[in-house]
Amino acid sequence: MERLLPFRFDEEEGVFWLLDQRRLPQEEVWVPVRTAQEMAQAIRDMVVRGAPAIGVSAAFGMVLAHMAGEDLEEADRLLRQSRPTAVNLFHALDRMRPHFGDLKGSLEEAKALWREVEETERAISQHGAKVLKGQVLTHCNTGPLATGGWGTALGAILEAHRQGRVCHVWVDETRPYLQGARLTAFELMRAGVPATLIADNMAGFLMQRGQVDAVIVGVDRMALNGDFANKIGTYALAVLAHHHGIPFYAALPLSSVDPRLETGQGIPIEERPPEEVTHVRGLPIAPPGFPAYHPAFDVTPHRFLTGIVTEKGILYPPFDEALRDALGLH
Amino acid sequence: MERLLPFRFDEEEGVFWLLDQRRLPQEEVWVPVRTAQEMAQAIRDMVVRGAPAIGVSAAFGMVLAHMAGEDLEEADRLLRQSRPTAVNLFHALDRMRPHFGDLKGSLEEAKALWREVEETERAISQHGAKVLKGQVLTHCNTGPLATGGWGTALGAILEAHRQGRVCHVWVDETRPYLQGARLTAFELMRAGVPATLIADNMAGFLMQRGQVDAVIVGVDRMALNGDFANKIGTYALAVLAHHHGIPFYAALPLSSVDPRLETGQGIPIEERPPEEVTHVRGLPIAPPGFPAYHPAFDVTPHRFLTGIVTEKGILYPPFDEALRDALGLH
Repeated sequence: MERLLPFRFDEEEGVFWLLDQRRLPQEEVWVPVRTAQEMAQAIRDMVVRGAPAIGVSAAFGMVLAHMAGEDLEEADRLLRQSRPTAVNLFHALDRMRPHFGDLKGSLEEAKALWREVEETERAISQHGAKVLKGQVLTHCNTGPLATGGWGTALGAILEAHRQGRVCHVWVDETRPYLQGARLTAFELMRAGVPATLIADNMAGFLMQRGQVDAVIVGVDRMALNGDFANKIGTYALAVLAHHHGIPFYAALPLSSVDPRLETGQGIPIEERPPEEVTHVRGLPIAPPGFPAYHPAFDVTPHRFLTGIVTEKGILYPPFDEALRDALGLH
Repeated sequence: MERLLPFRFDEEEGVFWLLDQRRLPQEEVWVPVRTAQEMAQAIRDMVVRGAPAIGVSAAFGMVLAHMAGEDLEEADRLLRQSRPTAVNLFHALDRMRPHFGDLKGSLEEAKALWREVEETERAISQHGAKVLKGQVLTHCNTGPLATGGWGTALGAILEAHRQGRVCHVWVDETRPYLQGARLTAFELMRAGVPATLIADNMAGFLMQRGQVDAVIVGVDRMALNGDFANKIGTYALAVLAHHHGIPFYAALPLSSVDPRLETGQGIPIEERPPEEVTHVRGLPIAPPGFPAYHPAFDVTPHRFLTGIVTEKGILYPPFDEALRDALGLH
């Protein structure tokens, strides 16, 4: 199976190629990036998206700055401004600063960062695969395209399919942004995994009919008790899975646990523009001027979780204890 | 408040005007219909949709046939072929046959049919309004546009708003066909009711936050025990409302109860083309050729229902007894 990644680095030519995610799945266009300035623009324009993928891209942006002879402080500044809310971006650029002026050291650091993302997600995928079987349902996009690695929830699904444990995937389209329909569907198709797209409101019907054996989703931020924020619609899926007695897992790197948060109550819910609900990829679907609401995330209480899939293995209740152990906080 | 209807009859000019529902909500275009032949075409092309509205339109199609001097048997045949699965269409045309050749009798029968639809739905709306208050959530389209009357679930919401009981409506967009975003939103806007569009997967989040006081939906077919088929996504809403302790009502004319069905298990689920999931109003949202599943309806077990709103009042559990009473089946 050919592995799908959001980018590839041509070291000889000094070109970092990005798969243009704005044009997926209708077109598969690779964009060459030759300077940090071009990389900052590509990140701002969302050619590449997903926090881990942005982090790796920014690190290689600094490598390109060395190769292209750009001003390094200016390159660092441009990259930091490209997506000011992505924490992984700052972490990645912080790691690159000690290597300013050292192309070889810079390249090694960028590769090390990428390798770490891959290793963490490889472990998550392998642990997660053990608990998945039959027909699995997922929401949003948590695969290699978002991470540059193996993916989290989708990584576990892909690995479970490779092992012959998962035979079919139900893909929530994930309104309003359609990350499921556009990106997860694309990744599953490329990986040759039997999968079927559904509207988000069909998941309950499939569970009622016994056609879902497990649900696994990603995590945007998790509190120390296991409560977690993820793409809007995750909470409803959790309640539905709970009602039907279907195992429900969240997969994440332990770096996504926020040790300052005791519970999910402290997690702010980002509201995005209502136009993303009243329009589908630019096409209006509601009366002009009709109000819409667009909470981009919701918070799922830990009691709906069967287990938490991390790079250190699967954590089971009581989650507060298990998470503190995994994070070395005791 | 100006009442929105899918049609109006200009008796003097002999013109039945249809509001073109294919072009809503972006455009509000009225189409003149002067013959039964034109009416059959308009029904086939879905200028008018919704079973009760089609029935009334077909009855007036026969009135137009008289006024335009068309062959009446041919007119009847054309109208019957226009939407062969709509039961209301056949019921309406059956009622018109005894008046063949009698313009005045024909006109009176068509008006009587329309009046009966209105009276039934007026009663449903008034009974339903009594149990609604605060913020109400609904799914799909159950308003005047679908019926030619007052509507069922949406009729109750509109009436409850008129009485000052309901202050705000959450409108599920209702993927994949977007009846909520396109038609329910349009009806609420025209009625001046404060309302907000949401993606279907946001309903659970709103319930979690205490922002939904009641859910009310329509019914496609109900069994004698209260189990009912309705637009896909209704079942998930019912489970979510149940989990959050939120009252959940179904509204329907008693003619939508199928006395041959003891439970909902016998209700077939229509599967529609997968292209309606992979495309939004013709725009592709998934990789070309990606499989999709499109069950158009689901069945909600009666135990999730707080009450059933009918023209004879609100029925409460045990529903099998209450429904048999209302239908006079004891």
